[in-house]
Amino acid sequence: MDNIRQRGGSFRRALFSLYSLEKADEFATILSQLGWEIIASRETVKLLSKKGIPVIDVADFTGVKEDYGFPPTLHPKIEKYLTFSKGPRIDLVYVLPYPLSVGNDIGGRTLLALAAKGRRIPVMSVSDMEKVTKHLKNKKTLPRALREYLINKANALIASHYDDLVSNRETNDLLVGRFQYTLLNGENPYQIPAHLFSLKWKDTLSLPDFKQISGERPCFTNLADADSILQTISLAAEAFKLRYGKAPFICICAKHGNPCGMGISWNDASSAVNKALFGNPRSIWGGEVIVNFNIDDRLARLLYKSKRRKEMLNESAWMLDVIVAANFSRGALRILGRRRGRKLFENEALGKPFLPQVKFAYRFVRGGFLRQPPHDYVLDFKKVHTTGKGLDKQQMDSLIMAWSVAWSSNHGGNEIALAKDRQLIGVGGGPSTIEAAEIALQRAESYGHRVRGGVFAANAFFPFTDAPSIFAEAGLDAGLVPSGGKQEVLVKDYFRKKNLSMVYVDEPYRGFSRH
Amino acid sequence: MDNIRQRGGSFRRALFSLYSLEKADEFATILSQLGWEIIASRETVKLLSKKGIPVIDVADFTGVKEDYGFPPTLHPKIEKYLTFSKGPRIDLVYVLPYPLSVGNDIGGRTLLALAAKGRRIPVMSVSDMEKVTKHLKNKKTLPRALREYLINKANALIASHYDDLVSNRETNDLLVGRFQYTLLNGENPYQIPAHLFSLKWKDTLSLPDFKQISGERPCFTNLADADSILQTISLAAEAFKLRYGKAPFICICAKHGNPCGMGISWNDASSAVNKALFGNPRSIWGGEVIVNFNIDDRLARLLYKSKRRKEMLNESAWMLDVIVAANFSRGALRILGRRRGRKLFENEALGKPFLPQVKFAYRFVRGGFLRQPPHDYVLDFKKVHTTGKGLDKQQMDSLIMAWSVAWSSNHGGNEIALAKDRQLIGVGGGPSTIEAAEIALQRAESYGHRVRGGVFAANAFFPFTDAPSIFAEAGLDAGLVPSGGKQEVLVKDYFRKKNLSMVYVDEPYRGFSRH
Repeated sequence: MDNIRQRGGSFRRALFSLYSLEKADEFATILSQLGWEIIASRETVKLLSKKGIPVIDVADFTGVKEDYGFPPTLHPKIEKYLTFSKGPRIDLVYVLPYPLSVGNDIGGRTLLALAAKGRRIPVMSVSDMEKVTKHLKNKKTLPRALREYLINKANALIASHYDDLVSNRETNDLLVGRFQYTLLNGENPYQIPAHLFSLKWKDTLSLPDFKQISGERPCFTNLADADSILQTISLAAEAFKLRYGKAPFICICAKHGNPCGMGISWNDASSAVNKALFGNPRSIWGGEVIVNFNIDDRLARLLYKSKRRKEMLNESAWMLDVIVAANFSRGALRILGRRRGRKLFENEALGKPFLPQVKFAYRFVRGGFLRQPPHDYVLDFKKVHTTGKGLDKQQMDSLIMAWSVAWSSNHGGNEIALAKDRQLIGVGGGPSTIEAAEIALQRAESYGHRVRGGVFAANAFFPFTDAPSIFAEAGLDAGLVPSGGKQEVLVKDYFRKKNLSMVYVDEPYRGFSRH
Repeated sequence: MDNIRQRGGSFRRALFSLYSLEKADEFATILSQLGWEIIASRETVKLLSKKGIPVIDVADFTGVKEDYGFPPTLHPKIEKYLTFSKGPRIDLVYVLPYPLSVGNDIGGRTLLALAAKGRRIPVMSVSDMEKVTKHLKNKKTLPRALREYLINKANALIASHYDDLVSNRETNDLLVGRFQYTLLNGENPYQIPAHLFSLKWKDTLSLPDFKQISGERPCFTNLADADSILQTISLAAEAFKLRYGKAPFICICAKHGNPCGMGISWNDASSAVNKALFGNPRSIWGGEVIVNFNIDDRLARLLYKSKRRKEMLNESAWMLDVIVAANFSRGALRILGRRRGRKLFENEALGKPFLPQVKFAYRFVRGGFLRQPPHDYVLDFKKVHTTGKGLDKQQMDSLIMAWSVAWSSNHGGNEIALAKDRQLIGVGGGPSTIEAAEIALQRAESYGHRVRGGVFAANAFFPFTDAPSIFAEAGLDAGLVPSGGKQEVLVKDYFRKKNLSMVYVDEPYRGFSRH
């Protein structure tokens, strides 16, 4: 404990410099009753004097006679009183700086910086001031940890303030992470401690804004994977909105953040859920689910276990580790919340998923980071090149699904996704597009999906007709692929000859992500 | 141009607050000759007066009579002169703050902050002061861009200073990125502008420390992929060092940052290169190579084209996009540097690759980031559980290779790598371990590798004996897998029965990475 004693007969001092006077009189009363002297600027002096609380004007304290049009808080006497370990001192500064929208408050922040330097008590929020006065009132002492916390917080917030002033992101980029919570562990159990930080972006679908309502603490992987499928569902919802003005019920089942199942339905959430679960009923074991609707009791039962799964794989439970939804009913919470290892997250904003509106996305590399505008291309049927006889509504929907999955998955590069009847039926990855095609078809077939009549989406152009011939032979009806490649004309001719209805996305819009 | 004119008959003013007096007299002379008034603190006043340069002590300027033991630069008069747009003003502050090792210089930084707020000229380095005085001397004007640059720099450096003071990383994490260069584009051509930032870590293998010596600007993908294989070669080198005290020649060929070929040799770099190139001679087209040695003319020719490749795939050129080495000979640069699209990077430190010694690794998610200790587990044969008849030196080497690849690749989760005779022959990924095993074997066979007698490494335990049976049937001799799973005993029994020499890594050391 860090006892604040009376020092050499001198009383203790606090300096108030406040943009908002909320509770200022309450705090001043407490300090005053404890024998503290309070120094403040004009407005605060007026308020406290009216309430009969003794207070000294900072102009009188510093002896500054001239009226500069602002209180003389930046003054060598105050610098000395805040930073010197010996001699008279100010023990606490309570500063509520005016917000950046009003102006750049340097004076207030410098007081906090000086207080932090002198290891005084820098307070910069009403709630922290409440904590401080409560401690002083009850025990006349302040826990050392609280003082350390405030000093760190002051320096961090000052850093963040000056960061906000930097307009030229060409030369510096400063990422101010706010601690959210400690994770169970990193990607592997030996990687502890692991944490989630928020970047305080204005985005209601920020991962730190998802509320965990059941289960033990998530690990790094849980959140990384949830983030990946949040991108997939956002891509899909945006493309559906662009095409139809609204999105259907969407359910995505994933493993390691890569969708292995996805279902949509325009009128029945349970149909979307079932299509997603049975896309790859084996791989989803221990996996993640995200939906753009509420999970009620009935849907919770679907996500809990299935007779059909029992028949197929001799085990009825789905054993999902992570479920992310707009909302869970009380019954759903009871049904799915039984298992400690199952983490349920909800966020109302997920009812209408959208892509983040940010300037940059980041990827860490050794000793630095890469920065690029985010992956925010949305499939727009008005701006693509199409060949063949066109797509019916079911094929259109399936193609949007396959596109959103192929363009946001990572199976090693050159991802290909297959969908049919509004269900994702297989996903594969390269290095080569041939391998990606073969693996996707193989996965679809091994879970009993009939590929014939389905559609595919690829996130990279086909360099030759080898991968296209695999699709043609499998009897697919339609596909989507970025334009490009030296053999582009040959590839397009091939698809035409084989009667596949094709969608070609313009060349700058390749679908690489998650390198 | 931002003309600094004489205002209303008043002269222009500069305030000097310097920790180091280097060139202070030179700058003061120039300003003085241009008719500027100079205000400074005690030591500077002494120096300038001695040189006959007119100067005003800041104590006289502010009218502060009391000696506080430091110059009264934090004063309302200075705040006013630096921030008000009307009335008398200080036009420039030249501040060299004392370094953090000496103390926390708040005063100097506040002067810079005030100058930035008032859109004066904040100067905080000798070299920037040189630029400023040169402009003032030659043209009596300051380019607007230079002033903007200095204002941004001041705010960024102040932010960085306060960040340095934050000791408690639990509540805040501030990543200060320093701009390195603009990339060709992001993962996809539409993602521009993209940039590389350095985190100024003390690590000679930091990606920003690699010097590009040939080729057009790299894109986001080039560097992300180079970073991934830098991790693989570092893992491998560390494990070899732990086992033998030194590492062999190592060459890794990759696509999308995932090794598709890897070769090692204890005495011949060209053997390592050839083994790596022919691991998957098709997929390496357009790929990335990293080696822990110098590329001389002879090795450059191997990396340029191959008769054997021509026989196999009807095209002799390897078409590598990125080559990273400790050093390139002049001849190598001539041979490999011909193609604009091929980017050559060198870094001497790559001669002895090592893992980064950092506290945390980061991954961005929507609206925040995840933080965990880095993947720094190194395979240590003294601390594993082994069964079977043991490994000969070739198998040991192959197992280290397979381990380093499986534990640093991303093929969608549950990666498996196969190696034989010190050559990587196949890699596959799940979602399920069965699929990963099947894909890895399939890839090995499709490039003419005889799997029998090889070894495997998996980055996740086997939940059942299904994947193990695939390896046993393929005739593999040995393998490595993390311990764990409900059927662990059954799986271990199975491998024993099938005569595979096994290495079991302790449970906390799963090999997940790159979620």
